[in-house]
Amino acid sequence: MANQTYSNAQLSALEKRFRTNLINSLTGFKSVALIGTQSTEGSTNLAIFSQIIHVGANPPLIGILFRPHTVARHTLENILATKHFSINHIRRDFVEKAHHTSARWEISEFEGTGLTPDYADDLLAPFVSEASVKVGLSYVEHHTLRCNETVFLVGEIQKIILPEYCVGSDGFIDLVKAETITCSGLDAYHQVASPVRFAYAKASQPVVTIDN
Amino acid sequence: MANQTYSNAQLSALEKRFRTNLINSLTGFKSVALIGTQSTEGSTNLAIFSQIIHVGANPPLIGILFRPHTVARHTLENILATKHFSINHIRRDFVEKAHHTSARWEISEFEGTGLTPDYADDLLAPFVSEASVKVGLSYVEHHTLRCNETVFLVGEIQKIILPEYCVGSDGFIDLVKAETITCSGLDAYHQVASPVRFAYAKASQPVVTIDN
Repeated sequence: MANQTYSNAQLSALEKRFRTNLINSLTGFKSVALIGTQSTEGSTNLAIFSQIIHVGANPPLIGILFRPHTVARHTLENILATKHFSINHIRRDFVEKAHHTSARWEISEFEGTGLTPDYADDLLAPFVSEASVKVGLSYVEHHTLRCNETVFLVGEIQKIILPEYCVGSDGFIDLVKAETITCSGLDAYHQVASPVRFAYAKASQPVVTIDN
Repeated sequence: MANQTYSNAQLSALEKRFRTNLINSLTGFKSVALIGTQSTEGSTNLAIFSQIIHVGANPPLIGILFRPHTVARHTLENILATKHFSINHIRRDFVEKAHHTSARWEISEFEGTGLTPDYADDLLAPFVSEASVKVGLSYVEHHTLRCNETVFLVGEIQKIILPEYCVGSDGFIDLVKAETITCSGLDAYHQVASPVRFAYAKASQPVVTIDN
């Protein structure tokens, strides 16, 4: 099997689009979701993000990395203004609409793509009605990275809405049943196969599978 | 379709293991990889991580979130000491060994699990020979989150090693061909189906697919 290698200097010399595709593919399959926000005037915004990570279970926290805050970033600005946002998993049957939110819309992405806003409790952020797994969050803190001015923002989970049949007796969410998809690179979306699950690993014994 | 909902207060009241599984599942399918490091004395360490995100393409940067630095965290300590680490994608045929790295080993996880260390250039961190996609990085910066003492660390890519046949003419890496897997929750590993790719989205036209 012939390997291809790239050094740091070789990466710098690559054509921009090639480098962007390559580096964006390197973190493997990614969490991808639609983030819903609204401005203080109530204008809704919906944007697709793949830089989303688990931060903690207690308190329940999720982090998102935003591109540099040097041009208009409606999602980040809305979160800083209203303190609320939603994370909505993407299902295969509306992935085209989800991708279409990344276009430059003069109107709300909900209106432009035909996805449906939905509200819960007193959260100042729309959910996506078509999503199966929906999470409402409130702002906790953010850090601007010195290396490239991206912004790492953390929110605390205030509300979870998901289909009953996806939640196992041990709390594990079957994301394949929920029809959640994953993504890779900048523009590729994938369906996922049923998992193998393993018990807590011990050095003294082989890894054993557990049932869902 | 009956929905299940959880408020922030209801999450706090859940049994700990149930809450941990539930919250860890909420970010969707995750990047999962083995992170290789070594101590200043040359002892190797290998650990499985699912909190890995793309930070930037130019300069080429990847971020990792580490659990609180209040108990021994060999991976984080090694990176802070040697300034180097590797990220190695996991293939289905060694996922049991990858999961087994999470046990408490008295010896190196390489020795314990039977995975093979491999070196490139002058990087002070072992790669996993069995991995198809391997990335060598150097430390750039880190931030400790106030909310839960987790540590967000950023590295710059110094070396990429991957099979030639996975890299498309536009730089996109076909991670399905590379046999990279994804994970969900704390202990579930999934194979992934071939993607649909979409062209750069425009508000004035429908989303169109592109060939790999």
